[in-house]
Amino acid sequence: MARFDVYVTYKKGIFDPPGATAERALQHLGYDEVRSVRIGKYVQLEVADGTSEDRVREMCEKLLANPVIEDFRIVRVEGD
Amino acid sequence: MARFDVYVTYKKGIFDPPGATAERALQHLGYDEVRSVRIGKYVQLEVADGTSEDRVREMCEKLLANPVIEDFRIVRVEGD
Repeated sequence: MARFDVYVTYKKGIFDPPGATAERALQHLGYDEVRSVRIGKYVQLEVADGTSEDRVREMCEKLLANPVIEDFRIVRVEGD
Repeated sequence: MARFDVYVTYKKGIFDPPGATAERALQHLGYDEVRSVRIGKYVQLEVADGTSEDRVREMCEKLLANPVIEDFRIVRVEGD
């Protein structure tokens, strides 16, 4: 089994509603030190041995991320 | 400005509906090598200089994660 982690984030300039909500909520709770909160997705994939990163990239482009508004970063997890 | 990344994941044994949906969808798209997909949150926090990790942990416990069903991991991002 191979493991890949994928980090999906909104592109710069794209409004991030969950992040904006959390930011306001934290400030209202008294956390005045909070400047910005962005919330993306953290995807943990388990795939058959030998699966290439290109194949995972394809899965991201087709389903796990929306390339119009989101960026993604793939990290192969070793020794797992 | 200081940066912390927070990774929020469902605890082991807790059902992860978005992950299960993505898993089935990828397999239906022909990605038979997919064994498991878990989807958590990737939170990027910008806070005032000098904010401690304990303070960020408090924000996680109060708002960013649900400690009953979720685990979280905090990573200080250096040189950002």
